Amino acid sequence: MDEEKIIEELMSGKTKPYNISKAAGGEKNAAKLRRKYLEKKYKSKLDKVGNTVVDFEDAENRNVELSIGSAQVPLGFAEIMITGEYVKNKGDEKSVVFLATTEGKLVASVNRGAAAINKSGGVRTKVLRALMTRSILLECESVSDSSRIMGFVRSGEGEKYLKNEFSKHTKHGQLDHVDTYTTGRLLFIVYNVDTKAAMGMNMVTIGSTNATKALVEKLKAEGLKAKILSESGNMCVDKKPAMINIIRGRGISIVAEAVIKKEVISEYFRASAESIRDLNYAKNYMGSSLAGSLAHNAQVANVLAATFIAYGQDPAQIVDGVNTFDDVKVMPNGDLYISVYIPALEVGTYGGGTRRETQQELLRCSGVYGEGDSKGVTKLKLAEIIAAAVLAGELNLLAAQAGMELSRSHSEVKRG
Amino acid sequence: MDEEKIIEELMSGKTKPYNISKAAGGEKNAAKLRRKYLEKKYKSKLDKVGNTVVDFEDAENRNVELSIGSAQVPLGFAEIMITGEYVKNKGDEKSVVFLATTEGKLVASVNRGAAAINKSGGVRTKVLRALMTRSILLECESVSDSSRIMGFVRSGEGEKYLKNEFSKHTKHGQLDHVDTYTTGRLLFIVYNVDTKAAMGMNMVTIGSTNATKALVEKLKAEGLKAKILSESGNMCVDKKPAMINIIRGRGISIVAEAVIKKEVISEYFRASAESIRDLNYAKNYMGSSLAGSLAHNAQVANVLAATFIAYGQDPAQIVDGVNTFDDVKVMPNGDLYISVYIPALEVGTYGGGTRRETQQELLRCSGVYGEGDSKGVTKLKLAEIIAAAVLAGELNLLAAQAGMELSRSHSEVKRG
Amino acid sequence: MDEEKIIEELMSGKTKPYNISKAAGGEKNAAKLRRKYLEKKYKSKLDKVGNTVVDFEDAENRNVELSIGSAQVPLGFAEIMITGEYVKNKGDEKSVVFLATTEGKLVASVNRGAAAINKSGGVRTKVLRALMTRSILLECESVSDSSRIMGFVRSGEGEKYLKNEFSKHTKHGQLDHVDTYTTGRLLFIVYNVDTKAAMGMNMVTIGSTNATKALVEKLKAEGLKAKILSESGNMCVDKKPAMINIIRGRGISIVAEAVIKKEVISEYFRASAESIRDLNYAKNYMGSSLAGSLAHNAQVANVLAATFIAYGQDPAQIVDGVNTFDDVKVMPNGDLYISVYIPALEVGTYGGGTRRETQQELLRCSGVYGEGDSKGVTKLKLAEIIAAAVLAGELNLLAAQAGMELSRSHSEVKRG
Amino acid sequence: MDEEKIIEELMSGKTKPYNISKAAGGEKNAAKLRRKYLEKKYKSKLDKVGNTVVDFEDAENRNVELSIGSAQVPLGFAEIMITGEYVKNKGDEKSVVFLATTEGKLVASVNRGAAAINKSGGVRTKVLRALMTRSILLECESVSDSSRIMGFVRSGEGEKYLKNEFSKHTKHGQLDHVDTYTTGRLLFIVYNVDTKAAMGMNMVTIGSTNATKALVEKLKAEGLKAKILSESGNMCVDKKPAMINIIRGRGISIVAEAVIKKEVISEYFRASAESIRDLNYAKNYMGSSLAGSLAHNAQVANVLAATFIAYGQDPAQIVDGVNTFDDVKVMPNGDLYISVYIPALEVGTYGGGTRRETQQELLRCSGVYGEGDSKGVTKLKLAEIIAAAVLAGELNLLAAQAGMELSRSHSEVKRG
Repeated sequence: MDEEKIIEELMSGKTKPYNISKAAGGEKNAAKLRRKYLEKKYKSKLDKVGNTVVDFEDAENRNVELSIGSAQVPLGFAEIMITGEYVKNKGDEKSVVFLATTEGKLVASVNRGAAAINKSGGVRTKVLRALMTRSILLECESVSDSSRIMGFVRSGEGEKYLKNEFSKHTKHGQLDHVDTYTTGRLLFIVYNVDTKAAMGMNMVTIGSTNATKALVEKLKAEGLKAKILSESGNMCVDKKPAMINIIRGRGISIVAEAVIKKEVISEYFRASAESIRDLNYAKNYMGSSLAGSLAHNAQVANVLAATFIAYGQDPAQIVDGVNTFDDVKVMPNGDLYISVYIPALEVGTYGGGTRRETQQELLRCSGVYGEGDSKGVTKLKLAEIIAAAVLAGELNLLAAQAGMELSRSHSEVKRG
Repeated sequence: MDEEKIIEELMSGKTKPYNISKAAGGEKNAAKLRRKYLEKKYKSKLDKVGNTVVDFEDAENRNVELSIGSAQVPLGFAEIMITGEYVKNKGDEKSVVFLATTEGKLVASVNRGAAAINKSGGVRTKVLRALMTRSILLECESVSDSSRIMGFVRSGEGEKYLKNEFSKHTKHGQLDHVDTYTTGRLLFIVYNVDTKAAMGMNMVTIGSTNATKALVEKLKAEGLKAKILSESGNMCVDKKPAMINIIRGRGISIVAEAVIKKEVISEYFRASAESIRDLNYAKNYMGSSLAGSLAHNAQVANVLAATFIAYGQDPAQIVDGVNTFDDVKVMPNGDLYISVYIPALEVGTYGGGTRRETQQELLRCSGVYGEGDSKGVTKLKLAEIIAAAVLAGELNLLAAQAGMELSRSHSEVKRG
Repeated sequence: MDEEKIIEELMSGKTKPYNISKAAGGEKNAAKLRRKYLEKKYKSKLDKVGNTVVDFEDAENRNVELSIGSAQVPLGFAEIMITGEYVKNKGDEKSVVFLATTEGKLVASVNRGAAAINKSGGVRTKVLRALMTRSILLECESVSDSSRIMGFVRSGEGEKYLKNEFSKHTKHGQLDHVDTYTTGRLLFIVYNVDTKAAMGMNMVTIGSTNATKALVEKLKAEGLKAKILSESGNMCVDKKPAMINIIRGRGISIVAEAVIKKEVISEYFRASAESIRDLNYAKNYMGSSLAGSLAHNAQVANVLAATFIAYGQDPAQIVDGVNTFDDVKVMPNGDLYISVYIPALEVGTYGGGTRRETQQELLRCSGVYGEGDSKGVTKLKLAEIIAAAVLAGELNLLAAQAGMELSRSHSEVKRG
Repeated sequence: MDEEKIIEELMSGKTKPYNISKAAGGEKNAAKLRRKYLEKKYKSKLDKVGNTVVDFEDAENRNVELSIGSAQVPLGFAEIMITGEYVKNKGDEKSVVFLATTEGKLVASVNRGAAAINKSGGVRTKVLRALMTRSILLECESVSDSSRIMGFVRSGEGEKYLKNEFSKHTKHGQLDHVDTYTTGRLLFIVYNVDTKAAMGMNMVTIGSTNATKALVEKLKAEGLKAKILSESGNMCVDKKPAMINIIRGRGISIVAEAVIKKEVISEYFRASAESIRDLNYAKNYMGSSLAGSLAHNAQVANVLAATFIAYGQDPAQIVDGVNTFDDVKVMPNGDLYISVYIPALEVGTYGGGTRRETQQELLRCSGVYGEGDSKGVTKLKLAEIIAAAVLAGELNLLAAQAGMELSRSHSEVKRG
C-alpha cells in the first residue's frame, strides 16, 4: 500500500498501528510509518528514535510490538578483578562490566570502588543457588484436598511425575523441586527450575503451567477436584519485592566480598573502616528497618539498573535483585571486610533481551554471551561480574557518605 | 595526542580511561578511543554500541562517565484516553505513552488493556501528593538531646529556620515540611520537598544536607552537640522497597481507575468480572502477602521499567514505584471497577535523563517535556500518563490470567 | 432454681451456660455452677481454678463472660532506678516492676540487667508520643469522591467538625488529628486520640465510629455518597504487627537508654562492650532482617507479656509493642550505650483489666493506678517503668548471648 | 532467721530478695516475706496477690524467680465441634476451650462464632507441620568457608552427624533437618526439631547449641575456623513477628476451616456472606497490606492471648501465632467458606507453664495434658482446639463488623 495512505488510515483510526506490517512491507518500514503517524498526530519529531540499529524483523513479538525505533541510553564501563567460581581473573587481569545509565557519577562511583578493591586484591564471589521459580495457584475444595495434593507432590512419586511432565514442555529447563503452601482451599505450587544460561521465566511458566494442568487431570481421574486459578500466584515472586525471594532465593543467589586494606581506605576515601562499619549499621540496618525496607544497602538498584539495561536483562527484575544485604566488619588488623549478599539476581545470557544488537555486543565483550555449556556457565559468570560491580558501588557510596563531614564538597567524586 | 598512542597507554595502564578526554579532543572522540581500547583488550566488537545519537560533550558527568556509546532498547507505544487533573483528553482524544522494552508481548498487553479501557470511557487519574524526600541521619548524645532537636525542628520557628536554610541552596525546590524519627541517640530528619517539574533527588539532597549542617552549627552554638552521620539515612527511602514510601508517599502518589463495561470485558477478555475480582484477591493479596511482598499487583514493574527507560527517568526508581496496590470490584450492574494506587511514582520532566536525545523526543511527543509552570504541571501530566499505562497493564494481565482455563493457548495475546 | 437442676439443664443443653446468672443468684454462684457443669461433662476437676479473688459480679461483661474462675500466673519483681519525665527516682530510690510469668529465668534475667543498670546510674526514659488510633474504613464511588472527603477532613473546618463530633461520644478521649489514606474507592480515616490514663481502645472506637457516621450523613446531604465498610480497617493497627505503628507510633512511643560502665560490664557479664555491639548488629539487625522480622531485639516480648499480665494490660497488645529497636554503641571511653525504642507501647492505668483485683494491687504498689491527672500521668509513668524493664531484659540477654563462648554453662544465670 | 530481721535486711539492702529462701525456710515463706518487704517499702498492700494456689517450691527457677504470689486472670469458656486429625468429636460432642482474659465481650464473641459453626457442622482442622526451630549464628572467615560448612551440613553425612550430636543432649527432641543461610562471613544454621508434646524451645536450644559446638570443633580439626556468635541469631524466629515463620512454618502450622450455612449466617449475624467476603478483602488484605502488617486477620491475637494464658503456654509467643491468614469465599450455593491458616502456633502440653496448678487443670479438662504418645498427640489436639477457637473468633468479628451499618448498637453482642 501507499505509505501516505497507510498513515491516513492510521490517523482516521481505520487501520490500527499493530496491523500495518504486511502493508508496510515488513517491520522496519512499519516502524517508520508508525513514527510518521505519531509525528503527524502529536505534532512532534521522532528522528533520533528512528536512528536505530535494532532489527525489527527479528525483534517484533520477541522483544517488542508496535515498534517505532529505539531509546538510547549512554554507556560507561568499569574493570574489576574477580576471583569467583566461574570468572577467574589471573595476575592483574580484570573483567569489564558495562553500565547503561543517565545518572551522573554512577559510573565514576563504581570505578572508584573498583579501584580500591583492585588495589586490595579483588573481589571474591560465590554462587549459592541458581534456580528460577514460578508459583501456580490452585483452588481446592478443602484443606483435606489441598493436603492430599501437597502430600503427593512432595512424595518421591509426585516429584518424579512433575519432573516428567515438566520436561515435556521445555528442552532447556530442568525441574529441580517444588515447594508447596496452602491456606486451606488455596494451594500454591512453586516450581524451582534450573534454566541453564537463560533467565528462563518463560520456559518455567510454560513448563509449570502444563505440568500442573496434567496434575489436575490426573487428580480429577482419582476423584479429587482442583482448579488452576492462575499461572502465577504471586508466590514466585517475579518483579515484586518479597521476603520469600530473600529466604528461598530466586534466580541466582550470590555473595561478593572483599577485604580492603587499611592503607587503601585512606588512599581512596575520606572515611575510616570504623566509620564505614558504623554507617552500614546506622543507615542500612537501623534506617532501612525503621523504614520497613527489604533492602539493606546503599545503591544496589543503581548498579543493577545500569548493568541490566546494558546486558539486555529484564530491568523490571531489579525489583527482586535490589533486596541485597551489605555486611561490613573491621578486621583485627584494621582492614575492612565488606560483602554483598544478593538473594535474587535474575539474569541470563541467552534469550530475551540478550539477543538485541547492542546488548549482545556488550555481553560478548564481557565474555558471557550465549547458551554456554550444560551448566549455563555464561550466566553464572555474568552474575559474578554484576555482583562484583554491586560490591564496588556499595563500597564507594558507603565510604563517600561516611566521609561527608570531612569533605569540603561532598558532590565531588574522587575517581579510581 | 595520536590515537594509537592513547590506546597503547590505555592498554599498558599508563593512562586511565577517564583521563583521556583532553588528549582525545573531546568526549565524542574519547568514547571512540575507549571503544577501541576495549575492543582490543577484550578481543570483541563494539560497532553497534558506537552508533549513537548521544552528545557526549553534554552527557559526560551529567549523565555518564567513561562513556563509550549507547545501549539501544526497542520502543513501542500505546494510546490511552485519560481524564485527569492535568491531562484532560476530550472527545476521542488520547494520550500517547512510550514503552522501551525487550520483553515480548508487553507493549501488546498494554495496548489490549488500553483498548478495553478506551472503549469503556477511559482512565480517571488523581494526584494525591507530590513531594520528594531525603532523610539526613544525625547522631546525638542522648534521647534528651534528640528530643530537643525534634521539638525545635517541628516548631513554627524551627520549620521557618529550615525552610530558609533550604532555600539558600536550590532555586527550584521548596521545602514543604520535615518529619522526624529517633531511636534515642540516632535522629532521622526527613525533608519533604516540592521539586516542581524535576524528579529532584539531587536538589533535595543538596538542600537537606546544607540545611542540616546549618542546624547543627546553630545547635552547637546553643551547647547541643549533634553530628551528621550520613546525608542519607535510608529513611527516605530512595531505590529500596519500603513501607515508609507506601505510608507517607514519595515523589508522586497517584490513583488511576476505570470502570470496564460488562460487554467490553467479554469482547476483549476470556474472563468474567467476578473471576478478575477473585484473582486479584487470591493472587495480589493472598499470594503477595504469603510471600511477604510489598507489591500487590501483577506486572506494574514491567510498565514502569518500559516507560522509565523511554522517558529518561531513573530506572532504579521503579523499585519504589512497584509497590502498587490493585483494587478490583464488581459493580452492582456487573461492570468492573479497577484501580491502581501508586504511592511512590518518582518521575520528572526536567533534568537528569530527560535531557538525552531520544528521551527528550519522546517526552515532547507525549507533550510533557521541560520545566513547565510553577506547579511542575508537565511532571504531573507524565505521572498521569504512566499511571494510566500501569492500569492498562494490570487490567490486561489480570484478565489474561483469570481467563487461562478457557484459553487454548495462554501465550497468545489478543490485541486491542 | 435448684443447683442440681441447673446443672442438669446445662448438661442436656436446655439451658445455655451464659444464661444462668439469674437462676444461680449472681455471677459468683453462676461461675461455680459452670465449673460443676464442666467437671461433670468433661470428667475433670476445676478446684484450683475456682480458688479466685475475682469479683465476678463486677467482672462479668466488663472483663469476661461465662466466667468460671481464674487462671493464676506466678509473680516476681525487679527494682530499677529510673530518671524519666514522669518517674523521677532520686538518690538510690528505685521503681518496682512486677512480672507475671511461667518462663523460668525471665525474672532473674531482668534482675541481672537491672542490677548492672542501677550500678551505672539507672535508666533514662523519654515519652515521644501518646496517642491511640483507630481506622474507619469507608467505600466511596471514585477517587474523586475519596479525595474530596480527604480534602475536607484535613482542612481546618473538617478537623474542627470531627473533633466536635468525636467529643460528643466520650468524656475522656480527645481527638488530636486524623490521617487519611485512599486507594481510590477505599478510604481509611485514622483517628489519633489522646486517651489520658486509659489505654483507650474502646473510647477511640466509639468516638471514631460515631464521628464518621456523622460525617457520612453530612456528606450525603451535600450529595456525596460514602459508606462505612468497617469500624476497623486494619490500618489502626490493633494487635497485628505492622510497619504503620512503627512509622507513625501507636499508644505510647518511648525510648529508654542507659550507659553501662565498662567495669560494670565485666563485673556482671562474661561479654565485652564490643561483643555486645557486634551481636546486636549480627542478631537483631542482620538476623532479623534476613528473617523478615519487624522486631529488632532479643526478648522484648517476654518482658511485655509478663508486665502486661501483672498490670492488667491487654496481653494481645504485646504484638504491637514487640516491634522494638535495640541500639548499642561503644562509647569512646569503652562504656556501653544501649537503648530500646518502643514505637507502640499500648498501656493504661484505668479501665479494662486494671480494675481487677491482683492487677490493681500491683499497679498501686508501683504507684501508677487510676485516672491520674488530666495528662494521664499514671499511664506515662507505667510506660516508663515497663520500658525500663524492657531495657534491662535486653541488656541481660544480649550480654548473656554474647558471652556464650566463655561460659561453661550458658544456662546458668548470674543474678544481680 | 527471724522474719522481721529478714525484712529489715531487705529494706536496708543488706540482703537481696533472691537470697532469702533458705533463711525464710522455703519459697512459700520467702514469697510472703518478699510481699511484706514490698508492702513496707512501697507503702502498699499485696493481699490478693498473696492468695495463691501456686506451689512456689515447685515453681521457683522452673517458672519464676523472686516469687511473691500470683496474678489472677478471669476465665471463661466455649464449646466447639471439631473434626480434626486428632480431635474427632462425634455426634453433637464438642471440645471445651478455655479463655483467660480481661477483655469484655471476647468470650462472648468466641461463643457466638462457635454457635454458628456448630450449627453448620463444626470446624475441620488439619496440622500441616510440627517442628520447632532455633538458629545458631556463626561467624566464618569468608564465603568460601561458610559455603563449605553449608555444603557439609546439608550433605547426608552432615545431617547424620548433626542428628547424632543433637540426640546426645535431649531425650525427647528429634532433629528433623537443618536449613542454612549465609551472607558471606555470617552463617545461620536453623535446626528444625520434632519436640513431641512439648513446645520445646529449651530442648531445641540446648540440642542446637551443643550440636553446633561439636560441629565447630570438628571443623577446626579439619582446619576450618568458625566461631559461634550467638545461640540465637534471630532467624528462628522466636517471639518476633517474621516472614520466615510464615514461609517456613514454626511450631505447629495448622488450618481450621468451616462452611457456614446461608441460613445460619442470617440467624446469627446481621451481615451477608458477600459482605463478609468483601470485608475480609478490604480490611484483612487491603488494610493490613497498606499498613505493612504481617497479620491478615481481625482478632487472632485476642484468642491466642486468652487461650495461651489459660493453658500455660508462653504468652510472648502469640507474637508468632498472630500472623494468621483469614480466607473467605462465597460458595456457589450462597454458603460461606471461612478458614484461618496459622503458620506458627507454638504450643505444648508438657513442660513450661503447663505444670502450674490452674493451667494443668484446664489442660486436663480439655483432655490434652501431659506427654501423650510418641507423636505428641496431646499437643496436636491442643493446637486443633485453639485453631478452632481462633476461627470462631474471626467469623464472629468479621460478621459483626460487616453488619455494622445495619446494627442499631454495634457494641451489643448477640450471643450463641
